[in-house]
Amino acid sequence: MTGASAGAALPLAAQPHHDGSGLYVSTAAPRLGETVQVRLRIPREYGDVVAVRTRSNPDHEPRFSVAARLGPPAAAAPSGVEWWQAEVLVQNPVHGYRFMIERADGRVDWLCNGGLSDIETRDDDDFRLITHPPAPAWGAEAVMYQVFPDRFARSAAAAARPLPDWAEPAEWDDEPVHRGPSTPRQFYGGDLDGIIEHLDHLERLGVTLLYLTPVFPGRSNHRYDAHTFDEVDPLLGGDAALARLTAAAHERGIRVMGDLTSNHSGDAHEWFRAALGAPGAPESDFYYWLDEAQTDYESWLGVETLPKLNWNSTELRRRFIEGEDSVVARWLKPPFALDGWRIDVANMTGRFGEDDLNEAVRRTIRQTMIEVNADTLLLAEYTNDAAKDLTGDGWHGAMTYANFTRPVWAWLSRPGPVDWFFGLPYPQMPQYTAEQVYHAHRRFTAAMPWRSRIHSMNALDTHDTARFADRARPGAVPVAVGLSMTLPGIPVIFAGDELGATGSNGEHSRTTMPWDRLEQHADRIELYAQLVRLRREHPALSHGGLRWLHVDADSLVFVRETAQDAVLVLAARDDVDITLPASALGGGAHDAGARRLWGAAELDGTRLRSTGMAFTAWSLPGVAVPH
Amino acid sequence: MTGASAGAALPLAAQPHHDGSGLYVSTAAPRLGETVQVRLRIPREYGDVVAVRTRSNPDHEPRFSVAARLGPPAAAAPSGVEWWQAEVLVQNPVHGYRFMIERADGRVDWLCNGGLSDIETRDDDDFRLITHPPAPAWGAEAVMYQVFPDRFARSAAAAARPLPDWAEPAEWDDEPVHRGPSTPRQFYGGDLDGIIEHLDHLERLGVTLLYLTPVFPGRSNHRYDAHTFDEVDPLLGGDAALARLTAAAHERGIRVMGDLTSNHSGDAHEWFRAALGAPGAPESDFYYWLDEAQTDYESWLGVETLPKLNWNSTELRRRFIEGEDSVVARWLKPPFALDGWRIDVANMTGRFGEDDLNEAVRRTIRQTMIEVNADTLLLAEYTNDAAKDLTGDGWHGAMTYANFTRPVWAWLSRPGPVDWFFGLPYPQMPQYTAEQVYHAHRRFTAAMPWRSRIHSMNALDTHDTARFADRARPGAVPVAVGLSMTLPGIPVIFAGDELGATGSNGEHSRTTMPWDRLEQHADRIELYAQLVRLRREHPALSHGGLRWLHVDADSLVFVRETAQDAVLVLAARDDVDITLPASALGGGAHDAGARRLWGAAELDGTRLRSTGMAFTAWSLPGVAVPH
Repeated sequence: MTGASAGAALPLAAQPHHDGSGLYVSTAAPRLGETVQVRLRIPREYGDVVAVRTRSNPDHEPRFSVAARLGPPAAAAPSGVEWWQAEVLVQNPVHGYRFMIERADGRVDWLCNGGLSDIETRDDDDFRLITHPPAPAWGAEAVMYQVFPDRFARSAAAAARPLPDWAEPAEWDDEPVHRGPSTPRQFYGGDLDGIIEHLDHLERLGVTLLYLTPVFPGRSNHRYDAHTFDEVDPLLGGDAALARLTAAAHERGIRVMGDLTSNHSGDAHEWFRAALGAPGAPESDFYYWLDEAQTDYESWLGVETLPKLNWNSTELRRRFIEGEDSVVARWLKPPFALDGWRIDVANMTGRFGEDDLNEAVRRTIRQTMIEVNADTLLLAEYTNDAAKDLTGDGWHGAMTYANFTRPVWAWLSRPGPVDWFFGLPYPQMPQYTAEQVYHAHRRFTAAMPWRSRIHSMNALDTHDTARFADRARPGAVPVAVGLSMTLPGIPVIFAGDELGATGSNGEHSRTTMPWDRLEQHADRIELYAQLVRLRREHPALSHGGLRWLHVDADSLVFVRETAQDAVLVLAARDDVDITLPASALGGGAHDAGARRLWGAAELDGTRLRSTGMAFTAWSLPGVAVPH
Repeated sequence: MTGASAGAALPLAAQPHHDGSGLYVSTAAPRLGETVQVRLRIPREYGDVVAVRTRSNPDHEPRFSVAARLGPPAAAAPSGVEWWQAEVLVQNPVHGYRFMIERADGRVDWLCNGGLSDIETRDDDDFRLITHPPAPAWGAEAVMYQVFPDRFARSAAAAARPLPDWAEPAEWDDEPVHRGPSTPRQFYGGDLDGIIEHLDHLERLGVTLLYLTPVFPGRSNHRYDAHTFDEVDPLLGGDAALARLTAAAHERGIRVMGDLTSNHSGDAHEWFRAALGAPGAPESDFYYWLDEAQTDYESWLGVETLPKLNWNSTELRRRFIEGEDSVVARWLKPPFALDGWRIDVANMTGRFGEDDLNEAVRRTIRQTMIEVNADTLLLAEYTNDAAKDLTGDGWHGAMTYANFTRPVWAWLSRPGPVDWFFGLPYPQMPQYTAEQVYHAHRRFTAAMPWRSRIHSMNALDTHDTARFADRARPGAVPVAVGLSMTLPGIPVIFAGDELGATGSNGEHSRTTMPWDRLEQHADRIELYAQLVRLRREHPALSHGGLRWLHVDADSLVFVRETAQDAVLVLAARDDVDITLPASALGGGAHDAGARRLWGAAELDGTRLRSTGMAFTAWSLPGVAVPH
């Protein structure tokens, strides 16, 4: 592939490092025209460095600034590490920069968001400073719990509600139908008051953000085919139930995020009904009609029940996403007070044929959210490469499977045939080495700004995927969950994961919660609760930089670090005995020693040993950068 | 770097191949909604393949199509090669696609424009089908000759013209001043009739496209500081001389391209003069003013004589780039009849602070050119990564140094200190291996559509750079020139290159042509003429695919091929003895044998041998793809 060549030959722990975290960047949310300090960490093993420059790209033209070394050279520093600092003038809303490192022998390396390179690097792989308003402070600290309302819990009131005409009733313990026409009709009858009744379970897990798949009424159990965005489905308890749920959750310190379909509505949607076969209707330009009579229309992947929205319509924008009276705004305001939106099929939104209105839509949604309540989070579904649209102006982060989910599955799943793999026609479960996981993670985050990365979802599974536990190698669950809690991004638990639920595809994974026998899964619940606690007790895991220390076929070793706090992580699927370079845990107070937080691996100096599947985290002191 | 991992481990000649050329894509300029056949070549050495799919990305959502094998499997084919074909439905104006290759052992590889990968690849590195109107048919076949008018030739009339007030006269054989305030003032007095008098020299070289740096009047020898775009500088002979030059060139089959500054004008420009200090003037919004009195303004990299144009102005667009009466249009029409434009500082055009109007500007220029004369070429200056703006809607190609110029210099230049390197503060001349050249070339072309790539300039030097001959290793010039003629892209000769001219920086390279002693350089002229002839006689070098066969520290081996014609190329800087896999030259009629076209290397079967610096090209029969 294109990236090869490079300092790739150097051990990871011997490479210079920079990322978008506070150790390396003085201001995460600069103003246009502001000067930002950026820092570079160089370990002794890299060799002597005589000069460091930043190479910015304002208006797409290179501009250099000269860095100064802070403190002694690595060779003379007790930590074995030297630091350089330079000023970068932020000249565009998305301001790219990279480092040019001049070595004592005259060779030059470049360091960009894609890594170290001995040849020049591409603009898209630059580090980035962004002047658009940042995500809410709580976003990067969130631990998300995803609920598919039909399957979570049924309040007493739910049983009394009449069954809608489209629905096929299911018993709570039935296996989800996951193929054929009954799949979207199978109706378990979970509701929002049911969720309220089980918020203690969320508290027990320690999660801080409840993400609800759609709550608007549709003609399916998934409700992605809304027939209005103006009321909560009465089958879920209606508007009042949503207000009760957000109030109850907020009381417990849990935020609540909704789910909006910006790519399409249901074919029973009031807008669509008004426009179907009715040229001249005010809603006519809300959709893509394929005939003049407005009876044939474009839909999501050809699914007729999901007609595609046409964002050329200013009236659609006004009703749905723009301003105080829009759908986007309404549900963020009291009494509903949602704390954000997850946007369904964000990748396709506004895109059709010659149209590409995605930027306008995502910017408008964001702007409306800022106007109504700036303390809200906006995440966007991108099942594949998300980086191109993560420019800081719209989505805060992505629900994406390319940089975390699929690589981790490919490393930790049992081999064997698969029936598609997250929408990709793999005939066999891909079997990655940890090196491939590392490269995939870097490849799909290289073009992501740091702020987008720490707000993107680290999900092992969701309502759209098989369950990881369904295919995990023996002992792999703690490793995978551990990675979701420790790599940059928002950890996600899809309700049921913590009970060992399985499911062979997205629909099959929409299992109900077995509330009457929860304690059968006490160990798994405790595993999740402990790893959530690890995440929440160590700010480095939310805000710290990510420095890779070692990768081989069977292990990943990295450290997340801030000035106050650092966490060393080992994830392995087989025995390891690794000795890191002396400076790997250096950089200041690290030398003061490590404390094991979770797991069973041994750390002796810089030697790491473990057997079999392993996930271990150690606390290290924060990093002292010289002045 | 991000890309490592992958089929990178496989020898290049053993890898599957696809590119945007006619062997692999049925239609280079499809319509929206058209179905295109795409083909994949798989050599025997890759191993057995059981299925091939295309993975398109319409509206940013994956869509797969299944390929069928054409003819026998590689193991049974005499050529050692098998071919697969699939249909791709073009759903967006820029429609990305890649291949998913399922191997007999269940492993899956991806092939994208960045190369082969055993992990998933990024959207930006997809192959691309583009529905925007294509470049003129002659574009990819052009061999460009660049002339800096002040330095090429002086007609008898030139001597009689009065010296302008800003100028400092030079004798024709003076060394160019290349530092300090006299640099832009030193005036040699070359003119357009001087060029007409020497068109026989261009014919002798065989070039087909004359590119003139600006001919509008300025207050400098380079004329990038135009004070009007409405007349040709009288010092060059005025409008009539340009009409004479294009007529004379066209008579000889040579096209002529002009040079426009879309990022800035001169500070003596009539528009700027009208607006300076005059709020309310019709031209007020043509520039970026930093004060209300309109006396302080934004300029190109802070150079006060080059005020930056503000493309928010609709009146500026109307006068300069939009429609039949614009500057862009006027000079393409008779009697001037320029055949295209090279756009100066295209990378920064329309970009300033929060503004990014580049797409609108480049699309408008292109649209105007299509309206006036669609048979014209539009190239854009991007000294660095150009790919992001090469979306097929605006610039046909780029004048860029990242994918060809700098890598070739870094491989074939003498080591030693440099005083910057194409604007990059390298302290020493970078010393690349050929592997690094290969990776840099792939990295900076991976996100370029094929059509943009074959219309981008392969310049070894220009009026903005040192001369390659100034730093070339002994014997390296034929190798570098050979590469410029054989890699995809438009070969460029900067006037004087063919005489062995030297120059230590851009200004120093603006040497005059020693017409009275041309024959002292007959050997070098003949070298260029031969390599231009090689290029022009083999359509594969203009239109053929590029398949890499071998790369090591000291050599590059590749083949350019079409159904009718193929050329094998070896470029080496030291002794080589390489044996390619049996199928490398296969794929059909290749086996019929090779004929050496240029150079001294030996080809015996698939064994290549040469000594020292070497450039050799062989003719091979075209490639027969089974039906």
